[in-house]
Amino acid sequence: MGPMIATFTDFGPNGPYLGQMEMATRAIAPTIPVIHLLSDAPVFDPWASAYLLAALAVETPPDTVLLCVVDPGVGGSRAPLAVRADGRWLVGPDNGLFELLIRRAACVEAWEIVWRPQRLSPSFHGRDLFAPIAARLALGENPEHVGLQPIPTPRQLDWPDDLAAVIYLDHYGNAWTGLRADTLKSAEIVVGGLRLTRVRTFGEVAGGVAFWYENSSGMVEIAVNGGRADLVTGIELGAIVTI
Amino acid sequence: MGPMIATFTDFGPNGPYLGQMEMATRAIAPTIPVIHLLSDAPVFDPWASAYLLAALAVETPPDTVLLCVVDPGVGGSRAPLAVRADGRWLVGPDNGLFELLIRRAACVEAWEIVWRPQRLSPSFHGRDLFAPIAARLALGENPEHVGLQPIPTPRQLDWPDDLAAVIYLDHYGNAWTGLRADTLKSAEIVVGGLRLTRVRTFGEVAGGVAFWYENSSGMVEIAVNGGRADLVTGIELGAIVTI
Amino acid sequence: MGPMIATFTDFGPNGPYLGQMEMATRAIAPTIPVIHLLSDAPVFDPWASAYLLAALAVETPPDTVLLCVVDPGVGGSRAPLAVRADGRWLVGPDNGLFELLIRRAACVEAWEIVWRPQRLSPSFHGRDLFAPIAARLALGENPEHVGLQPIPTPRQLDWPDDLAAVIYLDHYGNAWTGLRADTLKSAEIVVGGLRLTRVRTFGEVAGGVAFWYENSSGMVEIAVNGGRADLVTGIELGAIVTI
Repeated sequence: MGPMIATFTDFGPNGPYLGQMEMATRAIAPTIPVIHLLSDAPVFDPWASAYLLAALAVETPPDTVLLCVVDPGVGGSRAPLAVRADGRWLVGPDNGLFELLIRRAACVEAWEIVWRPQRLSPSFHGRDLFAPIAARLALGENPEHVGLQPIPTPRQLDWPDDLAAVIYLDHYGNAWTGLRADTLKSAEIVVGGLRLTRVRTFGEVAGGVAFWYENSSGMVEIAVNGGRADLVTGIELGAIVTI
Repeated sequence: MGPMIATFTDFGPNGPYLGQMEMATRAIAPTIPVIHLLSDAPVFDPWASAYLLAALAVETPPDTVLLCVVDPGVGGSRAPLAVRADGRWLVGPDNGLFELLIRRAACVEAWEIVWRPQRLSPSFHGRDLFAPIAARLALGENPEHVGLQPIPTPRQLDWPDDLAAVIYLDHYGNAWTGLRADTLKSAEIVVGGLRLTRVRTFGEVAGGVAFWYENSSGMVEIAVNGGRADLVTGIELGAIVTI
Repeated sequence: MGPMIATFTDFGPNGPYLGQMEMATRAIAPTIPVIHLLSDAPVFDPWASAYLLAALAVETPPDTVLLCVVDPGVGGSRAPLAVRADGRWLVGPDNGLFELLIRRAACVEAWEIVWRPQRLSPSFHGRDLFAPIAARLALGENPEHVGLQPIPTPRQLDWPDDLAAVIYLDHYGNAWTGLRADTLKSAEIVVGGLRLTRVRTFGEVAGGVAFWYENSSGMVEIAVNGGRADLVTGIELGAIVTI
C-alpha cells in the first residue's frame, strides 16, 4: 500500500476549512486517501497540540504524511516546515507543533518550504501551501523538486518532555493529559484537588468513581466509570496535574 | 463495484477515534471506501443504538461491511462478534447492538472473533480488533482465515421488536423514535403529553405545528414545520412514546 | 485527474444524512472522491447559503460536481435542478441556492431533473435524487442519458449581488459576511454598532481588537486578533452590515 495523508488541525468539526484543504491535496494526488485524524486540537495552542500530535502520530503507519495546521501565527514570520521523522513526513508551521515528535524520533531531517503558490492567502497556508506540499510528498516526489530547502535542524524549544496538564477533553468527557503512562513513575496523580489512582480499565472501579488509566494512545487519561469525568470532577482544558 | 465499510459509532463528531479507526482499516484495505454513516449514536447505549442501526443498515448496499462500535463493556467479558445478515457483514461487540438487525434478517450466520492483534488496547477494540477484521472481510477474505470461529447463534435478548421511545435528535431538532412507520397500527402517538397525528411531509401542516411522519429511513419521526421539534415540544432523548 | 464530488449542506456535523448521501454516490461511482466541503450551511436558509456557496465553489477545481442540499421545500413543488456553470456541475433544489453562482458565471446551461428513482423519500431528495444524478455526472455521463431535460434558464431572483449581513460563524468565532472584499468600495464597515476598519491580516492589530479583512475565500470577514469575534463583538448570524 502507499502512504496516507492524515490531517491534524484545530479547524473544528464544522466549517469549510477541512474540506478546502482536502480538495487541495486531492487536486494533486486524487488517489491518496485523506484521513481526518484530529480536527479539534486545542485552538491556537501549538504547545498543548504538540503533545497530542506526538501521541497520535506514533500510531500511524510509518510512511504517513501528517498535514498539521494549528497556526495562530499564519501570515506572520514563522517559517513553513517539512520534517521527516522516523519515516513519517510532518508538514506545517514552525511554531513548536513538531517539537515533541522531533525530540522523540531516532532519525530526523528538516526542510524549510521555500516554494510559494501563485495565490497564497495570508490566513490559510493549510490550504494554499501545506496541502500541496503534503500531496507531492505523499506521491513520493523528491523534496528538492517540490521546493524544500534542507535546514540543519528545526528550532528547538525548552518545553518539558511531558506536559503535566489536561490537553484534550473527548466526546465521553474523558480528559487526556500530556503525560505518557509508561514514563510516569507514580501510580497516583492529583488534579483539581482530587487524588486519582491508576487502574487498567473502567470495569475495575465502582460506577461514578474517577481514576486514571493508560489510554489507547499511551497517555495518562482521567476517566469515570459510567460517567463523564469533566462533569464529575470539574476538570477543564488546561488543568494542571501534579504527580 | 466492491463493498464499502460503513462506520456506526458513538465516538462523536470530534476527537481522534474515528480517524484512528479509519486508518486501521486503510492500512489493510487502502482502496476500500470508508463511509462514516453515524458518529453520534446514543453514547454507551447499545439498546437505543440497536434500533437506529437496524434502520440505517437496511439502506446500505447489500455487501456493506458495517463496523459498529457502541461498546461500554470494552475491556470486559463481552465477546467480539462478526455476523453475516442477508449479505451484509456486522462487526462489533456482542452487547445487543446487532439484536434487531439479526432478528429482522432472513439469513444469519455468526462468528466469534478469536483472532487477537499483537497490541490490543483494553479501551479501544474498535481500532485494534474490529477495524482490521472489517477490512479483511471487505477484501473478501475467508472468515476462518481471518480468525473467526463459527458459533451457533448469537445471544438473543428480550428487547421489543420496536422501541417506543425517542432514540435520536438530529441537527434540525427532529426526534427519531425506535418505531417503524410501516408496523405502527395507529395514526396517532402521544409523547411528552402531546398528541401527534401522522402526515406525509412537512408542508401539509401549518408552521409551528408538531406532527409525526415516516422519515427517510422508515422510522416514526417527530417534527415541526418550520421549527425545531426539540424546542417546540420539549421532547428529549429517551422520551417515552405511547401509541 | 477526474472530477470530485463536493457536498454543501445544512445537515450538520452529526447525524446519518451526510453518510447516507455519500453512500448513494459511492454505490454508483465508487472511485470518485467525495469531499465534505461544508456541512453546516445556515439551516433551511437558501438565501444566506447561496452567498456562501458562491464563495466556496469558485475555489474548487473547474470540473467539480457540487452536490448541494439546503432544501426546506423538499417534498413540495420546487423543481430539482442541474446547472453547468463555467464547467462545474451544480446539483440541488431550485430555491435560489445557485442564484449567485449562476449570476457570476460567464457560461451557464440548465436542466430540470426529470428522472425519478424507484424509491423517493419525500423528505430526503439529497440521498435519493440529487446524489445519484451527481454521481452519474461525475462519471461523465451524458445529461440526457441520466434524465435531465434542458430548460432555457433557471428562475432568477431579485437578490442583491452581495449580502450585507453575517452569513456564517466559524469554529474560531470569526464572522463571514456575504460581501466580497474586492467589490467593496469602503475600507470601513459598521456592524452591531461597531465601526471596523480593514487590515490585511491578524498580526496588524493589537490583541483583542476587532477588524475586518479579506478572508481566504475572498469575503469580508469580521475577526479579532487573539480572540473570538462572536464573543468580543456580540455579532450573531444574520447581523446586518452597513457600509
